[in-house]
Amino acid sequence: MFFHRKELMVPVDVKKPDPAYAQFLLQQFGGATGELTAGLQYWVQSFHCPKVGIRDLLQDIAVEEFSHLEVVGKLIEEHTREITKGAPEVEQSPLFALRGKGPHLIDDAGVNWTAAYINEGGDVVRDLRADIAAEAGARETYEILLDRATDPGTKKVLHYLLTREIAHTKMFMKALESLGKLTEPAFGNVKPDETVNIYYHFSANGAAQRGPWNQEPEFRYIPDPEKTVMEHGELVGVGGKR
Amino acid sequence: MFFHRKELMVPVDVKKPDPAYAQFLLQQFGGATGELTAGLQYWVQSFHCPKVGIRDLLQDIAVEEFSHLEVVGKLIEEHTREITKGAPEVEQSPLFALRGKGPHLIDDAGVNWTAAYINEGGDVVRDLRADIAAEAGARETYEILLDRATDPGTKKVLHYLLTREIAHTKMFMKALESLGKLTEPAFGNVKPDETVNIYYHFSANGAAQRGPWNQEPEFRYIPDPEKTVMEHGELVGVGGKR
Amino acid sequence: MFFHRKELMVPVDVKKPDPAYAQFLLQQFGGATGELTAGLQYWVQSFHCPKVGIRDLLQDIAVEEFSHLEVVGKLIEEHTREITKGAPEVEQSPLFALRGKGPHLIDDAGVNWTAAYINEGGDVVRDLRADIAAEAGARETYEILLDRATDPGTKKVLHYLLTREIAHTKMFMKALESLGKLTEPAFGNVKPDETVNIYYHFSANGAAQRGPWNQEPEFRYIPDPEKTVMEHGELVGVGGKR
Amino acid sequence: MFFHRKELMVPVDVKKPDPAYAQFLLQQFGGATGELTAGLQYWVQSFHCPKVGIRDLLQDIAVEEFSHLEVVGKLIEEHTREITKGAPEVEQSPLFALRGKGPHLIDDAGVNWTAAYINEGGDVVRDLRADIAAEAGARETYEILLDRATDPGTKKVLHYLLTREIAHTKMFMKALESLGKLTEPAFGNVKPDETVNIYYHFSANGAAQRGPWNQEPEFRYIPDPEKTVMEHGELVGVGGKR
Amino acid sequence: MFFHRKELMVPVDVKKPDPAYAQFLLQQFGGATGELTAGLQYWVQSFHCPKVGIRDLLQDIAVEEFSHLEVVGKLIEEHTREITKGAPEVEQSPLFALRGKGPHLIDDAGVNWTAAYINEGGDVVRDLRADIAAEAGARETYEILLDRATDPGTKKVLHYLLTREIAHTKMFMKALESLGKLTEPAFGNVKPDETVNIYYHFSANGAAQRGPWNQEPEFRYIPDPEKTVMEHGELVGVGGKR
Amino acid sequence: MFFHRKELMVPVDVKKPDPAYAQFLLQQFGGATGELTAGLQYWVQSFHCPKVGIRDLLQDIAVEEFSHLEVVGKLIEEHTREITKGAPEVEQSPLFALRGKGPHLIDDAGVNWTAAYINEGGDVVRDLRADIAAEAGARETYEILLDRATDPGTKKVLHYLLTREIAHTKMFMKALESLGKLTEPAFGNVKPDETVNIYYHFSANGAAQRGPWNQEPEFRYIPDPEKTVMEHGELVGVGGKR
Repeated sequence: MFFHRKELMVPVDVKKPDPAYAQFLLQQFGGATGELTAGLQYWVQSFHCPKVGIRDLLQDIAVEEFSHLEVVGKLIEEHTREITKGAPEVEQSPLFALRGKGPHLIDDAGVNWTAAYINEGGDVVRDLRADIAAEAGARETYEILLDRATDPGTKKVLHYLLTREIAHTKMFMKALESLGKLTEPAFGNVKPDETVNIYYHFSANGAAQRGPWNQEPEFRYIPDPEKTVMEHGELVGVGGKR
Repeated sequence: MFFHRKELMVPVDVKKPDPAYAQFLLQQFGGATGELTAGLQYWVQSFHCPKVGIRDLLQDIAVEEFSHLEVVGKLIEEHTREITKGAPEVEQSPLFALRGKGPHLIDDAGVNWTAAYINEGGDVVRDLRADIAAEAGARETYEILLDRATDPGTKKVLHYLLTREIAHTKMFMKALESLGKLTEPAFGNVKPDETVNIYYHFSANGAAQRGPWNQEPEFRYIPDPEKTVMEHGELVGVGGKR
Repeated sequence: MFFHRKELMVPVDVKKPDPAYAQFLLQQFGGATGELTAGLQYWVQSFHCPKVGIRDLLQDIAVEEFSHLEVVGKLIEEHTREITKGAPEVEQSPLFALRGKGPHLIDDAGVNWTAAYINEGGDVVRDLRADIAAEAGARETYEILLDRATDPGTKKVLHYLLTREIAHTKMFMKALESLGKLTEPAFGNVKPDETVNIYYHFSANGAAQRGPWNQEPEFRYIPDPEKTVMEHGELVGVGGKR
Repeated sequence: MFFHRKELMVPVDVKKPDPAYAQFLLQQFGGATGELTAGLQYWVQSFHCPKVGIRDLLQDIAVEEFSHLEVVGKLIEEHTREITKGAPEVEQSPLFALRGKGPHLIDDAGVNWTAAYINEGGDVVRDLRADIAAEAGARETYEILLDRATDPGTKKVLHYLLTREIAHTKMFMKALESLGKLTEPAFGNVKPDETVNIYYHFSANGAAQRGPWNQEPEFRYIPDPEKTVMEHGELVGVGGKR
Repeated sequence: MFFHRKELMVPVDVKKPDPAYAQFLLQQFGGATGELTAGLQYWVQSFHCPKVGIRDLLQDIAVEEFSHLEVVGKLIEEHTREITKGAPEVEQSPLFALRGKGPHLIDDAGVNWTAAYINEGGDVVRDLRADIAAEAGARETYEILLDRATDPGTKKVLHYLLTREIAHTKMFMKALESLGKLTEPAFGNVKPDETVNIYYHFSANGAAQRGPWNQEPEFRYIPDPEKTVMEHGELVGVGGKR
Repeated sequence: MFFHRKELMVPVDVKKPDPAYAQFLLQQFGGATGELTAGLQYWVQSFHCPKVGIRDLLQDIAVEEFSHLEVVGKLIEEHTREITKGAPEVEQSPLFALRGKGPHLIDDAGVNWTAAYINEGGDVVRDLRADIAAEAGARETYEILLDRATDPGTKKVLHYLLTREIAHTKMFMKALESLGKLTEPAFGNVKPDETVNIYYHFSANGAAQRGPWNQEPEFRYIPDPEKTVMEHGELVGVGGKR
């Protein structure tokens, strides 16, 4: 059951409203990398999470994200509070002029939020990996928003929100680590077959780029899969010849 | 520039066509966790990737995913090859009856593929974390598909595709590790503020669930944030009092 | 700021899990008429609501709807709790088989929730009318779900949720009435022109259906607008001749 | 069966084409609150409406909305008629430059119209409430468009269209009233349970906002539901203790 | 301006209602290949069509398609008219059970109609080619629906609707022919460069498939573009060497 | 199976990066008329194409379109390569500022690519007609982009891409012609009924526009269908009286 208090998670004080900047902020309200995506993703995951401790973690963070959504909404409300007062401010953002002041569940381009942004289902490892990815997207957008912000109060709030995304990432990493899956690729009930160490170099320009992600002995590097196919009729390591 | 050969990356041999099962397979052709999502995500990321080696990695895997998409498409083609021959098979999947045999860019529920499934942009760490999440979703779906498969040829192909998702995960983890970001939460140019270690226990039931994700000394646990707000007017560690 | 307690707003007790029924319930979790639509609509409206009392009303009900969302999610979790135990249950709902147990942010047909379902912006009267419409859609779906339910615990919960939609409707009607807009069509700053009382009978079959919605003296009934156009070159009451 | 005459429902005369303004007008052509939404919503409702008179009402208004759609389309055609003549006009709206002149089925932000905007199904009361909400959204947008219009001919047409939305609202209110449902919250076949009069104050700040929407004797006000839950383990009026 | 008469364009008489079949019919009501797509596409095109005769053609057919939409809607209404009478019929289509009887603006899978289905803009040749494609999709779906129909009245109506799509195709072909563009690939103001006759054989299996679409003298066949790139560093006919 | 080489299909050399122009180019990367739409449409069609030669044609062109997609992506990468260097360039395109440099799978308005853009299924004639329409849309957009381009390198590449769309159109026309369906409206297994030659003049203004698309003896012109209905109760040529 949810409860709400009017106090914001972090105080919002906007000295100079800027509707064009408010439009940017929509990305974190109704956009792909925004707080609604994060909050709903973790919340929905919590229903099928079999681990009590991690279920609690997902709910604690989900609830915090809803409070972040409120903070971003308040920032947008403040940055659009004067849009009816005169044309110049209005012109800065036709989006708000047409839809009215305050936040809407759209991104900066006016695209409706969709649950297609959410990545979840079936396995706690999959869910936690999706959560680390969601946090990375949110942090990236906050850095860009911070970079463009000029209002000091706005910057302070965004810095706090960015910080919390890192905090959440750390929590999700700890949870994955507790399952032994932070640095272990495989999970679930199916054992990979013998092709799991093959690296196919499918995109060529004559200069092989080698790195820890395709080096022996971890990986078996196939430098020219096309040649292999043309010579053998199929790829080495697959089918009868593997 | 792309080139194509008619040989499949892994041979497909379906003994007993099953249109209802083909409908399931659509999830990996035109669904959220499917090969198109993976291939296009890595491909799009490669354009803005500043590291030559990782850019090459993204392209190698993207091209492989397009070949996986083709394999899944071929599986669907085979499982629907008889749908015009008689009513009983048709009834197993009204979706294919109406849209025709072979793969379509929809998921098992008939929902069109959308680029909203894709997570990318601006930072290679963010992109690689998104890629590990994408692979986790793909692997999860392949395990479910394997679990429901009865045709031996289909199972063999799906096992191979599942294996490759693990292989890709390993590659992405190695790439993240080479950047020092596999186990380090923070990235980018903004340093977190002093609230980065706070854990807010927002979802209560009297029994605190503690684990590595909210324990001292890594984290500062706030057991009852609401009480804190009511007593202090704001949350500890935020604003003037932090 | 949001807080959460593990207790549900209404206890959920499902004796006989039914995945096919759970799929129906998705309509109220991630569907057009569901609790997420209602909760987010009222919440977003509250940011731009200029009336303190109604802003508070919107927030009180929004928070309640989030708790309803949780209850519906719990129902779905319970009805899908056994889907991995055997094929027969699985077959009842391929949707859950593929996406995993528990709720997802999709409707019963597998379509992602979209903010296009939300109706809000700019004026409190417009918002409240949209809210009464949202409640009507939710109530309609709950009646259908109740009609199809067989599990007694499920029925009890749905009856409660349906009841609350009526309670909310009453609250919204009272709020509209306090603004003098429950039975008064016009609102806002623009006065209608002299065509406001015209009823055009555009869809003909020779038998005019008359009722309070097109009767004198409230309305001026134009029985055959096409004839009017052909005789006068334009519609009576519009342009120079109005 | 439909018929069409080239005469517009209201004459359109645009003296000074303004592509940027045309982009705004798209909101009423292919946007959420536009004429297509209204026309299709009423039309689709008419198929399942069991009351002959109201079915006719829905069709009469639906046909009128299609004619409004045509008028808005003509306004857009006129405001974009010169976009190929020179760069400056083009720059005012990249949207039309890329898609060509005249109306398109998108909103001002370029988002495709979707039937997710439509609210209908199953019950005439639900449908009529949705229609009053649709009209409120349309009227709100027309007021904003009027406020920003500078061309006299455009203003005259928009004033007419806004007026007609009020006229339709009045008709829908009369129809609801004829069913006894304009001021009565409940409808359908399910009687609410005993919690129908409870008002939960879920969003707190120490200062209860009271109004006709939460006052005795109509409503039973629960000032602190969280305290109730913590003391009783559940909410008053629900479950065994109701 | 639109007018409507209650008579259908073709009489509908359904002897044996079949909700599952009605669900199929949704594809032509709110689906990609349906009458709404066709009607709106031609209608929107008519606004920017510079040729008076073809503009009239587009409007004549658009209006007919709206009447076809009505006919399909009536078929769906009839096939779902008994869904409240008993469980067995309901079970045939959960979609209608949840959304109510009669047509909805969704396809057979429950996906909302979207204007993304529409192809139009900027040039009459492009528009007419899109229209021939739209008709081909509609005809294809009608053939499938006819093939699955068992009710004689339904079959008769579908045969008529399929016939009309062919009639429209003929009209669009005649219009394209009148512009000299039915068999001439190029249109518009830009002359193609010298690569217009090159055929690249990008998808190889050692057995070149030759036909009128890649034969000399119309086309210059490049049998192995990859080899060309590897030998010359770029493709023949492009860049300095073309 | 796919292979890739780093060489582009056509060299890209952008002298003066222009982020606002890059935003336009997105229409051909992730927009309705773009290369992804074309490539995926032909590719998906190839799976169910029963004619070996045309299947090969579809694959050859599909692979080429993927290489075009890469070229457009490279153009966007080049035009956004300096967006982090300073505010003025950034301001030219907020879209890239927020999402990062390089291409994204959205159109110029920020709308996600959707498979709803794709038209395919069931019949090779339908597919080829859809392909000619897809090429017409792509060509139209390239002409507009060319018209707005100022960078010489960009223009050269766009001219090449436009040329190739015409080349593909010619190939698809040849393929249709080989099936006897380039100028023949009907296809498939159902013979049209006797109404196939009727032209209904549904959109009237007193001045009939006649042309090859509605002239005798090819067509039977019904000048006033409404009058026919009112006199006969149904349309001539339909039902018992046809």
